[in-house]
Amino acid sequence: MTLSKKGRKCMRLAELSERSGVPIPTIKYYLRERLLPPGHRISARQAEYDEGHLRRLRLVRALIQVGRMPVATAREVLAAVADDDLDPHRRFGAAVWAIPDAPEPDEGDPAVDAACRAADALLEQLGWTFGREVGAQSPAYRMVVSGIATMVRLGYPCDVGQLLPYGRSAAELAVADLDLVEGYEPGEEQVEAAVALTVLYEPVLLGLRRLAQAEESNRRFG
Amino acid sequence: MTLSKKGRKCMRLAELSERSGVPIPTIKYYLRERLLPPGHRISARQAEYDEGHLRRLRLVRALIQVGRMPVATAREVLAAVADDDLDPHRRFGAAVWAIPDAPEPDEGDPAVDAACRAADALLEQLGWTFGREVGAQSPAYRMVVSGIATMVRLGYPCDVGQLLPYGRSAAELAVADLDLVEGYEPGEEQVEAAVALTVLYEPVLLGLRRLAQAEESNRRFG
Repeated sequence: MTLSKKGRKCMRLAELSERSGVPIPTIKYYLRERLLPPGHRISARQAEYDEGHLRRLRLVRALIQVGRMPVATAREVLAAVADDDLDPHRRFGAAVWAIPDAPEPDEGDPAVDAACRAADALLEQLGWTFGREVGAQSPAYRMVVSGIATMVRLGYPCDVGQLLPYGRSAAELAVADLDLVEGYEPGEEQVEAAVALTVLYEPVLLGLRRLAQAEESNRRFG
Repeated sequence: MTLSKKGRKCMRLAELSERSGVPIPTIKYYLRERLLPPGHRISARQAEYDEGHLRRLRLVRALIQVGRMPVATAREVLAAVADDDLDPHRRFGAAVWAIPDAPEPDEGDPAVDAACRAADALLEQLGWTFGREVGAQSPAYRMVVSGIATMVRLGYPCDVGQLLPYGRSAAELAVADLDLVEGYEPGEEQVEAAVALTVLYEPVLLGLRRLAQAEESNRRFG
C-alpha cells in the first residue's frame, strides 16, 4: 500500500480485489459500467484506488449480488448516495428511496384500494407522520401496499390489527439500523453504509424470522 | 355454488378463478403440474372444486408469485404441508423448511466460518435451543449464515452485539406469525396458512422496515 499525493492510502487493482473479495474481471466490469469511479492514473496503463473506491465497491457488490439490482438501478442508487447537495436525512432517504421495490400498484384495483386503506390506517396507528406525508410517492410505501394487496387478493388476513405487530417490529429494526449507521463517518460514508446495511440485513432478517418461527412453534406445539 | 355428495360446497373452474383471482389458464397449468389436486369429476369433461382447492390454490400462488419459487420447490413444500403423519410442529417445520433459501455455504471459506461462529453465538444469546440443535441442517440457519458471510466478506459489521437486536425483533415477529396461524383450523389448513403467511409477509415486512428507517432518520437528522 502506498500514499497518494493527497496523503490517501492507495492500492492497485489486485489489492482492491483481495481486500473486497471481488474478482478483478468483475471490478473491471463495474468500472466500465461507471458503478465505480475511475482510479487515479499513475501511468498510461496503471491506476491506483483508495479507501473510497473500496467502500464504493462493497456497496456496489451488496446492491447487485444481495439486492439483485439491475445495473441501471444500482447506478441511480449510487447517484443519490453521492449527491452532497442534500442534508443527511434527505440523502439517506433518496438513496434508500432508489432501492428497487414492488411494481407500481394498479389504481382502481379493489385489492389495491383496500391495501392502501390498511396501510394508511397502519401508519396512523404507528404515528409515522413522515411516511403518511410522502405516502404513495415512496417506493417503500408502494412495496407495503403491493404486499398487502396480494394478501387481500388471496383472501389472507391483513387488517390493521394483524399488521400492527409487524409495524412495531419494523420500528425497532429501524432503530437498530440507524444505530449501526451512526457508527460511520457522517457524509458519503454514512449514506453508503445505510444503503448497504439496508440491503445486506434483509436475508439475515428473513432467515432469523424463519428460525424464530421454529422456536416459537416448538414452544407452542412441540 | 353447489353442494357435493359429501356435503362440501363445490364450484366450477370459473368460480374458483373468480374467488382466487387466479386466471383459468394458470389454474389449468397448476393442475397439470400437480400443484393442485384434480377436481371431483362430474362428467367426462367437467370437474368441481371445493374450499380445499381454493385454499391450496392461494398457497400455490403465494409460493410461486411472491416467493418466486420454482415449480419443483413448490411441489416439495406442498408435499410437506400435506404429510399428515407428522405432528403440527414437525409438519409446520417441514413445510417452512422446504421454502427455498440461500445456496449451501462453502465449507472452509473463512467468511463462512466466521459467520457460523457469529450465528451460533447469536442463537446461544437468544436462547434458541431448537435452532442450535438442528443447526446447519436447517435452510433458515444456512440463510442466516450466508447473509452474515456476505457482510463479513464485504467488511460490514455483524458481530453478536450488532445482530442481537435483529434476532430479538425476529422473535417478536414469530410470535405475531404464530398468533395469526393459530387463528386457522388445526391440521392441513393451519400448516397451509403458516407457509403462505411466512412468504406473503416478507415483502410487507421489508417495506415497513424501509418506511420505519425514513421515520427514524427524520427523527434523528431531519
